[in-house]
Amino acid sequence: MTQDKQAAIFDSFLALVKAPYGDFSGIGKLSKEINDDSTLEEIVNFLRQSPQGERAFKERILLGNIDLHQLHELPKNTLGYIYSDMMLKNNLKPVPVERIEDNDFSYLKIHLSETHDIWHIVTDSDIDKSGEVKLETFYVAQLHYDRLFLSLLSKNLLKTAIQEMELCESIMDALTKGWTMGKKAKPLFGIQWNSLWEKPLEDIRLSLDIAV
Amino acid sequence: MTQDKQAAIFDSFLALVKAPYGDFSGIGKLSKEINDDSTLEEIVNFLRQSPQGERAFKERILLGNIDLHQLHELPKNTLGYIYSDMMLKNNLKPVPVERIEDNDFSYLKIHLSETHDIWHIVTDSDIDKSGEVKLETFYVAQLHYDRLFLSLLSKNLLKTAIQEMELCESIMDALTKGWTMGKKAKPLFGIQWNSLWEKPLEDIRLSLDIAV
Repeated sequence: MTQDKQAAIFDSFLALVKAPYGDFSGIGKLSKEINDDSTLEEIVNFLRQSPQGERAFKERILLGNIDLHQLHELPKNTLGYIYSDMMLKNNLKPVPVERIEDNDFSYLKIHLSETHDIWHIVTDSDIDKSGEVKLETFYVAQLHYDRLFLSLLSKNLLKTAIQEMELCESIMDALTKGWTMGKKAKPLFGIQWNSLWEKPLEDIRLSLDIAV
Repeated sequence: MTQDKQAAIFDSFLALVKAPYGDFSGIGKLSKEINDDSTLEEIVNFLRQSPQGERAFKERILLGNIDLHQLHELPKNTLGYIYSDMMLKNNLKPVPVERIEDNDFSYLKIHLSETHDIWHIVTDSDIDKSGEVKLETFYVAQLHYDRLFLSLLSKNLLKTAIQEMELCESIMDALTKGWTMGKKAKPLFGIQWNSLWEKPLEDIRLSLDIAV
């Protein structure tokens, strides 16, 4: 690795340590620096090893438009209701539908981004600091070659050490849980979530080997 | 926290990320910057809550001189034999006996430093990269308020993300194991290890609630 490359990674890493939580603007920069093309290729090749991942890359499955209010009419134990309830309560909006460029890296990025909040629900990860750490660790386990989520984890541990040691125990518990869960679970990448809105969340977790 | 203070922490953190493994020269600097006096006080107060810790601070128990060759004559299942065998095989020497300044912070530092290799043995942490991560995480659990070991953990995750993603799984497994073990185990701080050389390691682990 060149000195310049390393310096760019450090710059974007420290910018995220300094940024307040919830300011995501620096993540894209760190991702670009640390997940270079050869890393992205390793991630794609790894995810394609499962038939579900292979199909997702082939068909470039996306969620499409989501009507949160419509999902909120479903029975209360369904994925659709629980997901939309969390989104509405926290005033979150689904990621706008993006056009995929004709390559696997673009699909990888967009699919991960638009399913992020669903992964929160399925893995029982809150949207507070320890919940984000739990989910980041789950990504580390599930994406295998991805350097971004591991560096985000590193960022959050440093932020805790400097700013908020009182959160240490809950952060470390979350990390441990996310790792154990992510290694044991079936792959979440490539699931066509919009065919599962009406299914009970409990059944989905069971079928994915996720014990919360 | 002042800007200068934060900059000093970042400087010493990045120096450690850049340094090759095994180069410990930067750890003292990071420790000095990140574990300020109020943090050290929290650690000491926490450790004094156990009668063992309280006694250690009162009597300032140290290991004293260690004769590795003499310990190596003990039966092969004893702490003394297993510890000395690891030290001799890896050409490691016990930390030279230091004079304690007349304050708790000095005792904390010296006791932790001279017992570090014994903690390696008792927690079944190898001296390779993942073993160090396991033990660092064990320290995070056992010292509770310490910011240094949490930042060292952060450093090792960033180093793995940048330099050696192929180690990610073993590093994360070690971290998870160190945390679970450290939370469950009785306190190791303040144990008078030199009274235990002749005891079977297995019995010591059992009495400390350490399952390897």
